[in-house]
Amino acid sequence: MVRKLFIGLLMLALIFTAAGTGLYTDTADARPQHAQGKAHNVILLIPDGFSAAYATNYRLYKGEPTLFDQMLVGMMQTSSADNAVTDSAAAGTAMATGVKTNNGMLGMTPDGKVLKTILEAAKEQGKSTGLVATSTITHATPAAFAAKVESRGQEADIAPQLLNKVDVLLGGGKQFFLPESEGGKQKEGNLLEEAQANGYQLIENRDELLAAQGKKLLGLFADGPMAAELDRDETREPSLAEMTRAAIEVLKQNKKGFFLMVEGSQIDWAGHAHDAAWAMKDTEAFELAVKEAVEFAQQDGRTLVIVASDHDTGGMSVGGYDEYNSNVEILHNVTATGQFLAAQIDEQGNNIRQVLGEYANLELTDEEVERIQQAENRTMAINTIISERAYVGWSSTAHTGVDVPVYAYGAGADLFRGWMDNTELPHRIAQAMKIEFKQE
Amino acid sequence: MVRKLFIGLLMLALIFTAAGTGLYTDTADARPQHAQGKAHNVILLIPDGFSAAYATNYRLYKGEPTLFDQMLVGMMQTSSADNAVTDSAAAGTAMATGVKTNNGMLGMTPDGKVLKTILEAAKEQGKSTGLVATSTITHATPAAFAAKVESRGQEADIAPQLLNKVDVLLGGGKQFFLPESEGGKQKEGNLLEEAQANGYQLIENRDELLAAQGKKLLGLFADGPMAAELDRDETREPSLAEMTRAAIEVLKQNKKGFFLMVEGSQIDWAGHAHDAAWAMKDTEAFELAVKEAVEFAQQDGRTLVIVASDHDTGGMSVGGYDEYNSNVEILHNVTATGQFLAAQIDEQGNNIRQVLGEYANLELTDEEVERIQQAENRTMAINTIISERAYVGWSSTAHTGVDVPVYAYGAGADLFRGWMDNTELPHRIAQAMKIEFKQE
Repeated sequence: MVRKLFIGLLMLALIFTAAGTGLYTDTADARPQHAQGKAHNVILLIPDGFSAAYATNYRLYKGEPTLFDQMLVGMMQTSSADNAVTDSAAAGTAMATGVKTNNGMLGMTPDGKVLKTILEAAKEQGKSTGLVATSTITHATPAAFAAKVESRGQEADIAPQLLNKVDVLLGGGKQFFLPESEGGKQKEGNLLEEAQANGYQLIENRDELLAAQGKKLLGLFADGPMAAELDRDETREPSLAEMTRAAIEVLKQNKKGFFLMVEGSQIDWAGHAHDAAWAMKDTEAFELAVKEAVEFAQQDGRTLVIVASDHDTGGMSVGGYDEYNSNVEILHNVTATGQFLAAQIDEQGNNIRQVLGEYANLELTDEEVERIQQAENRTMAINTIISERAYVGWSSTAHTGVDVPVYAYGAGADLFRGWMDNTELPHRIAQAMKIEFKQE
Repeated sequence: MVRKLFIGLLMLALIFTAAGTGLYTDTADARPQHAQGKAHNVILLIPDGFSAAYATNYRLYKGEPTLFDQMLVGMMQTSSADNAVTDSAAAGTAMATGVKTNNGMLGMTPDGKVLKTILEAAKEQGKSTGLVATSTITHATPAAFAAKVESRGQEADIAPQLLNKVDVLLGGGKQFFLPESEGGKQKEGNLLEEAQANGYQLIENRDELLAAQGKKLLGLFADGPMAAELDRDETREPSLAEMTRAAIEVLKQNKKGFFLMVEGSQIDWAGHAHDAAWAMKDTEAFELAVKEAVEFAQQDGRTLVIVASDHDTGGMSVGGYDEYNSNVEILHNVTATGQFLAAQIDEQGNNIRQVLGEYANLELTDEEVERIQQAENRTMAINTIISERAYVGWSSTAHTGVDVPVYAYGAGADLFRGWMDNTELPHRIAQAMKIEFKQE
């Protein structure tokens, strides 16, 4: 199961200039440019809420080393301007603009100065741009790459800011594009019609996506967020990998290249809910999206793929509960999210045993049945019991501030080696693209 | 606070051989040999129980990027042969021999086949060897590099196995070298006398260590483990950095080079006890030992320094308790371990407020005082309250299985880039030393 060491790469010579080299220039600081140099295209994939514990548990779940393991190059600090524990808005802003802001804010400094994003810098170079997510496409992480609002909750304000700036938009959140008169939340008119008038092909389900021929795509597959991968109706919604592939197919047509951000949005939500099975299944779906990106990069030879989470969610651990044990494999038997399971239980909780048996292959003890029955939050009670059985520990229902792993492949990947702050990320991307990127 | 990207390093040429290169040869798999090539000396430092959460909390505690941040090169899987959550004996065995064994076992396979360690392989090459720890020197991690026993608890059996194989032994555990007749636990006679007859200089306190002139050192500074750094009597016991420096001074005299393992043993014990202040202070002491090693390597130019934990302890998180917050800085006000604080409290618990005020600068609420007073384990109650105040979360009192960061500096450091299993570590060390290392 251990990767073989590489053969075939020879470094002929290294020259140190005596002046200006710090103590560590020959180790972590040494990030020689990739031989293939310039990144014509960049695909940044963000597994929201993912950390080393998710990576390790997912390896145990998968039963073998993952694509993440093969691509590991470093780690990243995730703090925001006002908190060692960031939210996704401030984290996305740091990763998109290179500037830290306060939790909750998007695309601007704590005092409201609007910031340029790496997506916008790529667009200025004539490159095409794309955002893909399984949350609403107006949610904090995708929004951070193109919108500027004081509060991440302003999703109706975010929607018009994404249009026209971004060529491919795929995710949930149709309600934020539809006018209030049609049951939506948009005060700026019907953004779907406006988008269509501006050349976007509108897409509403998986079949339409797979057949898409447009040069600009607006794919909105749900009024709110898309489904968790565990609960997804495959005939209706595309997978994250399918959206990633579709986005690449469109964007690669631009001879000047592209910048694409793909978010595995719901790993974070699984972490908040302590839903270990959801976390593993959405990580699997995310890995398949990374695979799409890497396969394109391998073929293309001028593409940089970076995978970096924005923060940890839940303080997940591998093992826990004061024991030396892990039993993550049982999560393969869990066929739906905790919230789906809770919704199958009747008010009195008479069918708890049956539901957990049917959807999670668990035989509950009397004590466990009672815990679910009596719980104020039955979803959390179910998820806690499944986590205990799988030995997936949690220290919080919020985010935590642990450094997250950074993975990279392709042109310029070596630039991401070592430890960095999240504000360095867009600068290194710009360096890989050999474009200028600075705030006014 | 963000490290500047390096200048001054130029890669003149990279040659890819077309054959034999896998998918990832140009990213994580690409670990070009360090220009200075061969590692004449190796210093492996193991912060027992340390993980990315300790690294992040320690950065917040220190208030600036750490030596670890500057040296980050990869991450490591820590599992044992029989458990995704390893103990230190199996972890040490994997890191020393390249073979996984069952939790609790040292220097042998699960079915009892004796294994060669990287320390022994270095010794076969004529190199000098050293083990330094703040636990008993016969404890699991140091023992893994030279002893072979079925159970880590056999410390009296481990002691004679270390002598003569290892030139410098510095740590606690004098009781395992002294015969039962003198209050020790040794059945094999008086190992101190034997050691002296075999050329070891015996050392019992800090002053003797600082003045040491011997070519072989046996420094045993306590009957059991040495003190936690927070509780250390500086006039009696040396620091981990002082022991590291003393070991290097002796070992570097061998023209054939040396292999030294230095363990920050008690980061792990702090984690088990959820003692966040102890964890931070012992991490600080460990970082100072790393600094000694790096400064020597910088001067020497032929030395490889590797820092790799054996596993996480406690499932520590940065933040926790369902809030977005971190307050690690208050741990600077805690001047003793939780166990020391608990020992200052009278039986009735009448002076709890006073003790926590005096030693931790905390004003306790009535509820907190009651929690400590009523606790079966007052040490844990104190540590839990301090952890809550500092927003240091925990998911277990046991180890967890999360991948740990790997840090490297100096000759051959690039070999440690990317993700690896703990069994790869000694093979990469051997590769850096350009010596053969395999099991029969």
